[in-house]
Parts: sequence; C-alpha cells; structure tokens
Amino acid sequence: MKKSPLQKARAAYQPKLPIVLTGAVKAVEGNPTRSVADQAEIQRLFPNTYGLPELKFEKNTTPAAGRPVNVGVILSGGQAPGGHNVISGLFDGIKKIHRDSRLFGFLMGPGGLVDHKYIELTSAIIDDYRNTGGFDIIGSGRTKLETKEQFDKGLEIVKELNIKALVIIGGDDSNTNAAVLAEYYKSINAGVQVIGCPKTIDGDLKNECIETSFGFDTATKVYSEVIGNIQRDCNSAKKYWHFIKLMGRSASHIALECALQTQPNICIISEEVEAKNMTLQDVVNSIADVVAARAEYGNNFGTVLIPEGLIEFIPAIKKLIAELNNVLAANADATKDLAGEALETFIKEHLSADNRATLESLPDNVARQLMLDRDPHGNVQVSLIETEKLLSEMVGNRLKTMAAEGKFKGKFSALHHFFGYEGRCADPSNFDADYCYALGFNAACLVNAGVTGYMSSIRNLVKPSVQWTAGGIPITMMMNIEHRNGADKPVIQKALVRLDGAPFRKFASQRDDWSMNTCYVYPGPIQYFGPAEVCDQPSLTLLYEHKDK
Amino acid sequence: MKKSPLQKARAAYQPKLPIVLTGAVKAVEGNPTRSVADQAEIQRLFPNTYGLPELKFEKNTTPAAGRPVNVGVILSGGQAPGGHNVISGLFDGIKKIHRDSRLFGFLMGPGGLVDHKYIELTSAIIDDYRNTGGFDIIGSGRTKLETKEQFDKGLEIVKELNIKALVIIGGDDSNTNAAVLAEYYKSINAGVQVIGCPKTIDGDLKNECIETSFGFDTATKVYSEVIGNIQRDCNSAKKYWHFIKLMGRSASHIALECALQTQPNICIISEEVEAKNMTLQDVVNSIADVVAARAEYGNNFGTVLIPEGLIEFIPAIKKLIAELNNVLAANADATKDLAGEALETFIKEHLSADNRATLESLPDNVARQLMLDRDPHGNVQVSLIETEKLLSEMVGNRLKTMAAEGKFKGKFSALHHFFGYEGRCADPSNFDADYCYALGFNAACLVNAGVTGYMSSIRNLVKPSVQWTAGGIPITMMMNIEHRNGADKPVIQKALVRLDGAPFRKFASQRDDWSMNTCYVYPGPIQYFGPAEVCDQPSLTLLYEHKDK
Repeated sequence: MKKSPLQKARAAYQPKLPIVLTGAVKAVEGNPTRSVADQAEIQRLFPNTYGLPELKFEKNTTPAAGRPVNVGVILSGGQAPGGHNVISGLFDGIKKIHRDSRLFGFLMGPGGLVDHKYIELTSAIIDDYRNTGGFDIIGSGRTKLETKEQFDKGLEIVKELNIKALVIIGGDDSNTNAAVLAEYYKSINAGVQVIGCPKTIDGDLKNECIETSFGFDTATKVYSEVIGNIQRDCNSAKKYWHFIKLMGRSASHIALECALQTQPNICIISEEVEAKNMTLQDVVNSIADVVAARAEYGNNFGTVLIPEGLIEFIPAIKKLIAELNNVLAANADATKDLAGEALETFIKEHLSADNRATLESLPDNVARQLMLDRDPHGNVQVSLIETEKLLSEMVGNRLKTMAAEGKFKGKFSALHHFFGYEGRCADPSNFDADYCYALGFNAACLVNAGVTGYMSSIRNLVKPSVQWTAGGIPITMMMNIEHRNGADKPVIQKALVRLDGAPFRKFASQRDDWSMNTCYVYPGPIQYFGPAEVCDQPSLTLLYEHKDK
Repeated sequence: MKKSPLQKARAAYQPKLPIVLTGAVKAVEGNPTRSVADQAEIQRLFPNTYGLPELKFEKNTTPAAGRPVNVGVILSGGQAPGGHNVISGLFDGIKKIHRDSRLFGFLMGPGGLVDHKYIELTSAIIDDYRNTGGFDIIGSGRTKLETKEQFDKGLEIVKELNIKALVIIGGDDSNTNAAVLAEYYKSINAGVQVIGCPKTIDGDLKNECIETSFGFDTATKVYSEVIGNIQRDCNSAKKYWHFIKLMGRSASHIALECALQTQPNICIISEEVEAKNMTLQDVVNSIADVVAARAEYGNNFGTVLIPEGLIEFIPAIKKLIAELNNVLAANADATKDLAGEALETFIKEHLSADNRATLESLPDNVARQLMLDRDPHGNVQVSLIETEKLLSEMVGNRLKTMAAEGKFKGKFSALHHFFGYEGRCADPSNFDADYCYALGFNAACLVNAGVTGYMSSIRNLVKPSVQWTAGGIPITMMMNIEHRNGADKPVIQKALVRLDGAPFRKFASQRDDWSMNTCYVYPGPIQYFGPAEVCDQPSLTLLYEHKDK
C-alpha cells in the first residue's frame, strides 16, 4: 500500500483517550432501564437482556489480573469515517487486558460471520490503518443478521475461534440485530457477548444516552468544505444557482449541520416539509420565491441544500409510493409481463384518485421512474430520483410562470451536485479519531465486564476528549415497536431532526437573513495539525444540542 | 463577513516571498525574444511589443527613491485558487514602492474596465481576503477585451484615476488580450502599462518560461482529496464502478495530475485518444476490457477518471461537430423555424456520410443533444454532454455483449461524479498562496520597471519558495497564429498534455499495474499547518517535468 504524505504523518497521531479509560476500570451499575416505548412488548421479546442497568466506568484501584480474550469484530452497512479507529481502539483495549488477547475481523460485513470468512487482525495490520478513513481493513456489507440459522452458523466459527465476544459496528438496524443476537446467544447460554458501536454519517442513531454516531462529524465537515468552495465560486461568478443534494435518506441531520456550517441561501429540511404537510410544488414555490426575491437586488445566484430523502418525506408522495408498492404487490401476476406505456396505464387505472393526481402533478420523467423502476423486491426506487435536478427544473418552470406575471425579472441558471461518497471514507477528524478510538477501547472494557446486549457509550463529547465519560447502554433501552416491511418489529428508534431542537431553531432563526443577504461561510478542509479552535471542534449540531440541555 | 475558524487562523499566514523580492530590485535584461512560431506575422501585429528581452530581477544595492503609483487590477475568466493573493501581493508590492500608491479593482472582470465599475482596494479590504480562495474581492467575468472601442473606453477611466498600469489576471485568452491591449496603448503612447499574470486551474497556460499557472496546484489537490475518499469507499464496499469527470475543457492536465496523485484503475487522457485516432467505441471498449479483467478476479469495482474535454478530442466526433456547426451556420435561414425531429432530419440529410455514420453510432440522447442544443452563437454545446454517464452507459452495453459471448462474468454497477466548482475557489495551498503572492508582488516590480506587454514570471518552483526566481516574460514570446472561430488570430499557444512528457510517461508506465491491482492512494485534504512534506509539496506534474529537464 503506497501511502500519501498525509497518511504517513497522520499514522503517528495518538488518539486522546478519556482519562478514565487510561487506567484500570470497574463498571458501576446504574438503575435498571426500560425501553423508550412499548415496554411490555420489548420485554417479552428480550426476556434475557431487557431492563439491564446503565453502566459507567470508574477508576479501579484494585483490579484483578486480566486473562486473554478472543474477540470478533464486524463492520456493518455504509462506510463512516473512523471505523478503523474503533477497531484499533478495540485491539489496544483487549491487548491491555492481556497481551495474548486476539482480535478476529469478519470479512465484508455480517455475511463474513455466517460464511466463516475472517482474518486475524495483528498489530502489523492494525498499525497500517490507524487514523485512516474507509472500512477496507476488513470490508463492510449489508447482510442482515436476523435468522436463527444465521446465528447458529455464526456460533460455529465463534466457538471454533474461542471468541468470547462479538463487537458489531453499525447503524440503527445493525445494532437492532446486535440486540437480537445478544438475546439469542444469552437465551441458549452460548457464552458469547455481543457489543454494539454507534456508526452512521447520517447522524440518526442518537438518543438520551448516545450523543452522536461516529462519522457524522467528519462527513459533514467534508461536505461543508466543498459546499463552502462552491459558495465562494457562486459569490465570485454571481451567475449560477447551485442545487446541492446531500446523502442521508432518513433524516436531514447532514443537510442541517452543513447549513449551520456554511450558511447557504436555502436549506430544505425534510422533517419540516412533512410537519407542514407541504407538497412538492410548495417546496418548489418556496425556492422560486427566494430566487425571485434575490433577483430583485440583481443577485441571480445562490445555493440550495437538499437532503437526499426529501421525496419520501413529502406526505402526498409518500402516500403515492405506498400505494404504488401495494398495487404492484397485489397485481404481481397481472403486471409481470407488462412494460412501458401498458404498465403505466395499468398502474394509473389502479391508483386512487388522490394519488393519481399527485402522480400527474410530477414531471413526466419522474412519474415514469416511479412507475417503472423497481428494486429487486419490487419496490419503487426512490433513491434513483435526481431530486436536485427535479427541483431545479420545476423551479425553472415556476419562474417562467412568475416572469409571465411580471413577478420575476432575473435570470435563472442552475448547476447540480450530489455529495455522499466523497465523505463516507474521509480520514477521520480529530473528533472522530478520538471518539472512535474511545468507542472501541471502551467496547473492550465492556467485554471485560462480561456484559452483553450493550452499546459502547462515550459521553460529554463537547468537552475536551480527556474529560469524556465512558460506559455502556443496554440496547433494548433505545427500542420501540415499529411497523416495517409489513410487520411489527422491535427496532432502535431513529432520531429525526427535531423541529423544537436547538440546531433547527438556530437555523430557522437565521435563514431569512441567509436567503436574502449573502452570508456564506467557507469552512475549508479538515485540519489535523493546526490550532485547537481549527482542528478539535465538534459538530455544531452537537454543540447546540448540548447548550440546549 | 462571518469567518470560519480556519479562515481566521489562515489570515495570519505570511506568504513566503522569493528572497530576491524581499529587498530592492533591478531588472536585468536578457536577449531579445521571438515568438514560439509565426515570427514574421506576430512581429507585424505587435510592432511595439515584439522582440522585447526577458527580464530577471536581481538585488539592487543603489535603488532610487520610489514614487507613488496607481495601478488597476482585473480578474478575468474562471476562478482559480490564489487570485486574492495575487492582488494582496500586488498591493503590498506597490505600497513598498511608495506608501501613497493606490490600487483600484475593476469589478466583475474586464467588463468593469469598459463600464467604469471599480472600487479602491484599501488595506482594510485586502486584509479580509489574504490567503482565501475565490475571486469575490472584486468578482470576475468573461467579457473579452478585443476591440478598439473597449480599449478607448477603458483608457478614459484609467486616465481619470491616474492609473499607470493595468494588471490582468487571467488564462491564455485573457493574456492574449492583455498583449493586444499593451500593444495598442503603446502604439498610441497612452502611457499605460499592461502586465499579465498566469491563471487557470486547467494548467494549460505554461511554457518554457512559465512553469505553471496558479490554481492548478490547489484545485487538483481538492479533486484528489475527494477522488481518494471515493476510492477508499470503492475499496471498502467493493461493488461500484465510479466514473469521475474532472473539469478542464481543453487539456487533460487535471485528470493526469489527479491520476498521479490517486492511482485510479483507469484514467483517460484526451490527447492520447486524439493521437491514437480512437473512436468513442474504442474508448468504451478499453474501459470494458479492464472491467471484465478485474471481474475475473472478483473485483467488480473500480474508478475511472475522465477529462471534461474528451468528446472534443475524439477525431471522428470533432469532425462531426465541425460539420454540424458549418451545416447550421450555412443553413441558418432554412433551419431557424425547424425543431425536434424535423430539424434532426434536415441535419442528417445535410451531413456527409462519414459524419452521419458517427452521429448514428452515438446513443440517441447524445446524438439528439448534439443536433438540438445550441449556445447563443448557434454552436453545438459539447459541455452539456454528461460524458461520465455516456461512457458508463456504453460500457454497460458493451459488457452485455461480452457477457453474451462468455467474455464477462461479473457485475457492473456505475456511479457518477463531476468535480469542477468544488476546487476552483478552495483556499490556496501553501504553494499557491506563496506563488500567487509572489506573482502579484513581482507584477508590482514590473510596473516599477516601466515595462509593458510582460507576464509576471516566478520560476524554480520545485525549490522552496525563498529560492524562487522572479522576472518578466514578453507575452508575444508565447504567441503563434491559430485558426479560431473562422479566422487566423495571434494567440498564446495552449499547452496540452505531451505524450512524450515526464508526467504522462510516468502514468503510462504504471497504469497497467493500477488497472488490475488496486493501488489507490488517498491524499486527504490540503493541510496548512503540518509538516513540510505534507503542506509544502508542489504538484507531481511540476515535479516530474522538472526532473525531466
């Protein structure tokens, strides 16, 4: 592996551990916990792992001698900056327990556990990946660990390698599955612990006990870097409207954080669109109004941030998609040989009047995409819709109407961007490098404490990293029952943007100013070696949420 | 202006001047120069500014007392990182000549000179923009200074402001126009000097005397950062082919530099495609062959870098576009009321058989775009073609054929990116911050030396900046006669990628290895505060070209 100069220099970075984790620790139990909702049902589904106490690590002045422990680690789902540091923290943590401890990495995600594909992670391998982005050390994958067969198959290799604990690094779904796996292994007395780590750039795995998921900090800083650069270009050339879509299907945390960092003219927040029951045309009109208002002052340029998941948050379209999926599922036989216009006609005939009207209000190419493009499960593929182009096209049409009415006298020329893959594997910021290393090291402490069904929890994150606290949170505590894919399931509650939360309120209080006046901020690239106020700042979302407490 | 923490910290950076410019200088004349080609014709067109000597600045131990000088500055064309530092270097340079010197910035490009729109750039303004990206201090524009009317109109405001010299910061076209302006003002004894500065991220304004244009270093580092991040994602998920288009219409320097920095699986170099007389299908097949070969080893992922200008370098398409433009120009009356299919039919009937065949070999949507989309001059709008999608679509089709023949057994799933606006206004790297500041400061020295028709020249750029040399190059020296827009014109020769040059040879010697083995390098973001090997490296293009000398 040929390394870049930065990679070489960055390899020497020693992540700063919370002071409590630098010596021997003991787990101090808090009160028993309960799930955020549906307590009876969650307890029924998790009889062995429900109601466990929160754990907090404190200094241990009389530690017992450690014994070697074998641990397996899995990277699950989409990449997030810092995954390699979770693994190196975990490695250092189990080596601190005993130098003969061993770490096994299952390859290409949870599938590696089921298929018995793994490597041993030695210090030579680990050292090559410290403080780097990516999940390439063992790869990641999206296989869901859900069935007894998978659990039993996994147990075979776990027993063969004498693995005492599995550490699963993933988002809300993967940690839900980790809880199910922990419950199952406990129920059969398999003697295997399962520990989760909160990962996702989307920032939607957080709650009272998990302040943020790792990767969000770095990814939003990379997106804000390029958004800032585009805004500086926009403000120099003064002739384009840039429509910038940002990754994050479920929640708008990424768009909101980037807006707080860069102060664009417009940022759409899906959760607000849903709460206000806005139509797509409402969203379009709100953008067109800002374009027209800026044009009054000769400012025929601007920036619009768009969360990737917007379409699915628009109530009318959400309803349409749900009925489309139902119609197709209910008429699988009748539609299987239909294509093109014949399929379109069939679908339109079977839609309710409301949803047909919504469909017909959409631009042709989008309507066609919704009707004809299917994923392997037969569902509408919303992610294929280029929302940024859809919006700019509809804004353009709206402005033509406004021009005809004398309400728009400017020019409108749009450019489009989509950022996602640019940030998921960036080298972790100091924050994520430290946070991830602590999460991994802390997971080793949870393994040593002998617990299962816990998520590694590092808190007090707006303080310098040495002051962070460490412990474990029962995963069942974060769960509720939700209707997903046609069935009620116990899942970790997803954290959407709260319209009464401090980050959104901060944004909402300033956006009128940002829309009319050009208030762009240019954050620049992530720095690793400079002054602390440049290198060591947490996300603004985290800062404002903390201040709100 | 709300500033980011990095912006605040970076404001304190003091660009490192070449040692020779830190004291008083004298201009030492070299031998008279001649243009790179078409000497007689260039001399005829530039009787007053042809054949001037190269100038080199050396220490002056007996300097005369300086007198206040008023200077005007213009940013011309596309943004490039470091423009603000050229202006701050120029400001500091004329203030060093005399503290009562004044700097006027013409607004939104050369049009500001013609329309008499300007501001005085005071130290308070300048200090707000030191070491920042963008051209927003005075804006930029694409008005071409070409006509006597424009020159005379400009002279009015120049005289009104008692401006002694104009400094034009631009690419090859803008510097060509600067030379014409210099010649004109000299011919009428206007008493106004014109000095150029070499700007363009494209890297195609360079020659024996100009080692690189400013902005190339920073922009390619930003693109390489995000390409590296995408490659790390690609190598973690192992399931996508990323088609990444990079800005740069005329030359492939950007794609080549990014390839040298990141080692992608494939990088197309337009100049090679042209030299080998490849068709679009040849390019497609060459990509499909690599996809299939990697698939043999289970590697259904990879990265492809594509220069923005590719389409226009494919000889058959270049011919087609030329004939399309001619057919439309020659039949303006007959086609002016035609649209859609009628226009397509008309065009096809009027194309030569060869070009009709080329047109029909293209995917429908691209053929239609070539026939129907026109710029305001009636020309085909090649820049609207999404080459990255065109290529991946054609590669997908080719792979289907290969699969049917048993020559491809893998999966092919493509994602697309286009990077341009993300890098043009980035905060300048240390290299560009120093280089630009030196170019601007040196321009002040050229003003003080009383010369006109010169380009600011800083050389020895692979050495630490204090060792750089400084001087001036007659712009006519870089010129030749080219046929553009239907007429022979004196222009600065564009520097395309040389297939016998060191950067391309370095790439060509390694690309087979990169294509089959995954050799990605992850450069990470530009650093400003770290070790010199991370922060102060020039581009690899510059390094290899230097070694080749």
